Amino acid sequence: MTAFASLDAFRAALAALPAADEEARAAALAHQAQLTKPQGSLGQLEEIATFIAAWQGRAKAQVLHPQIVIFAGNHGVCAQGVNPFPQEVTAQMVENFRLGGASINQFAKQAGAALAVVALDLDRPTQDFTQGPAMGEDELLAALNAGAAAIDPDCDILLLGEMGIGNSTTAAALAMASFGGVATDWVGPGTGSDAKGRALKADVVSKAVAVHAQAAGDPLALMARLGGRELAAIAGAVVAARMRRLPVMLDGFICCAALAPLARIDGLLDHCLVGHQSAEPGHARLLQAMGKRGILGLDMRLGEGSGAAVALLIVQAALAMHNGMASFEQAGISTQ
Amino acid sequence: MTAFASLDAFRAALAALPAADEEARAAALAHQAQLTKPQGSLGQLEEIATFIAAWQGRAKAQVLHPQIVIFAGNHGVCAQGVNPFPQEVTAQMVENFRLGGASINQFAKQAGAALAVVALDLDRPTQDFTQGPAMGEDELLAALNAGAAAIDPDCDILLLGEMGIGNSTTAAALAMASFGGVATDWVGPGTGSDAKGRALKADVVSKAVAVHAQAAGDPLALMARLGGRELAAIAGAVVAARMRRLPVMLDGFICCAALAPLARIDGLLDHCLVGHQSAEPGHARLLQAMGKRGILGLDMRLGEGSGAAVALLIVQAALAMHNGMASFEQAGISTQ
Repeated sequence: MTAFASLDAFRAALAALPAADEEARAAALAHQAQLTKPQGSLGQLEEIATFIAAWQGRAKAQVLHPQIVIFAGNHGVCAQGVNPFPQEVTAQMVENFRLGGASINQFAKQAGAALAVVALDLDRPTQDFTQGPAMGEDELLAALNAGAAAIDPDCDILLLGEMGIGNSTTAAALAMASFGGVATDWVGPGTGSDAKGRALKADVVSKAVAVHAQAAGDPLALMARLGGRELAAIAGAVVAARMRRLPVMLDGFICCAALAPLARIDGLLDHCLVGHQSAEPGHARLLQAMGKRGILGLDMRLGEGSGAAVALLIVQAALAMHNGMASFEQAGISTQ
Repeated sequence: MTAFASLDAFRAALAALPAADEEARAAALAHQAQLTKPQGSLGQLEEIATFIAAWQGRAKAQVLHPQIVIFAGNHGVCAQGVNPFPQEVTAQMVENFRLGGASINQFAKQAGAALAVVALDLDRPTQDFTQGPAMGEDELLAALNAGAAAIDPDCDILLLGEMGIGNSTTAAALAMASFGGVATDWVGPGTGSDAKGRALKADVVSKAVAVHAQAAGDPLALMARLGGRELAAIAGAVVAARMRRLPVMLDGFICCAALAPLARIDGLLDHCLVGHQSAEPGHARLLQAMGKRGILGLDMRLGEGSGAAVALLIVQAALAMHNGMASFEQAGISTQ
């Protein structure tokens, strides 16, 4: 079944986002208040547990079927020479994911998470967005639906990641077009560009945002003109997850930038955690613009869902605490 | 066997600290350089893996037998009314640890870590250090040895935590006597003191540091006069671990403050990671003074080894990456 029959159907979903279950949140908070620790003393672990409870709609939240989905795409803007790695690496890394050799495979195994890899027309890169729109409306719709279709029905938390040579340039263009500033605010080393490479990336991003300035007020037009298939798929997955109130864990700069065009829609990302704040310099600015905070700050900048997957361990710790601790009454502990 | 026959033997150990294995560190770095990711892109995960390799003395570091030890003690300074919880809670929480109801039990289970709880003369609190030394030399030596004796011979990373009603006051006194500043730099809410409680704690700490000013230059005298049994045990465990080049994970403000008197000994804490930066305000200052950085920053302030145990998950992720990833050559990935 196709999640979104048309871009209008996607727009309709954006206009009817379900809210969290406030009764479940209140019940989770009441449960936590009688556990054997000073209230609030586990900080973000307590907040994460009540967040999962509110979105799963049950006081005793659980993560039994975490799913990581990595979307991969290729980018026409690589014609501008923005990346030190050749474009064939996207497909080679997809194969590495499938054979279990990437970091995300190790993190998924540690956390007991299922890993799905969705390669989106790798042999047919998007158009070079300095010359015209990266994608047409049909291509955008197909990518949004590929994102929605990737979610396993049993999944109880969805982790999202991306792979695509050149996509830190795409991400910077989406962020700048969505939140303003200048290109150097959003451009960083990515997989390893030097100062000269970063200057080229900034020029390319400035040019692209100027070329598509007319689309600035239209989130879907921005996603098509300045985006990439794997980034649109992330947006499709986030909205599809929201329609079933499924909590989501985003990854770093590029994964978050995929949501930048939609982030001004009130409360759109309320069901999303962000796994980490990346070392990619634009991520701190992007998180601030989106009103979000990364769970981890480990100077990671790999992408590929790695920060989200490591942060899943923290969610699991939060729920182990929430569901496993004794109450003051059970433990016979004096409370004053 | 007693680790330290006398305080002089402990001092001798401090003067002969073994160094990390730099060959193993170099081999770990060389191994990482050919894994399928841009170099450095996993940030602190890469650093943690090479740190463990250097201290374990093997390029492929492993954590198969993590051990968490929580030391518990009671504090004479509670006579000054510094804590909102009654002193009997220390023993009640020790029982909670033993029955599996505390947060640390859930975190230990998630990480597959063994948990040992060492209660140190709970029915015989230290002396009130506003009136005289908290402990005599024999009591200090016994606590140092209790710390050393708690380490399991099979342990390949040691996590340390503490429990003791009143010990955030003790920790603040140790930190101030070791690193200077004023009492309000080091005093925070602890388990939940209000503004009035914090003001009382600061007065008590100022007074105690003044009473024992003559000991300022002597780390062991400070540990005896202003410390607590569980904090001295942490110091004993850290030094005993170092003697066998065993990596250590410290917890929050109180656990780190236990090392404050020793922290000026050059390189003493080189084998120690710090699990998190606590929400207890003195911890940021203490970490800076000790030249350390917390792995996590989740606004935790519970103690009891909780931040160290959650950070163990990050160490396990680092080693899963380090040991499990394919090389560029194995995966057939173009590197330029």
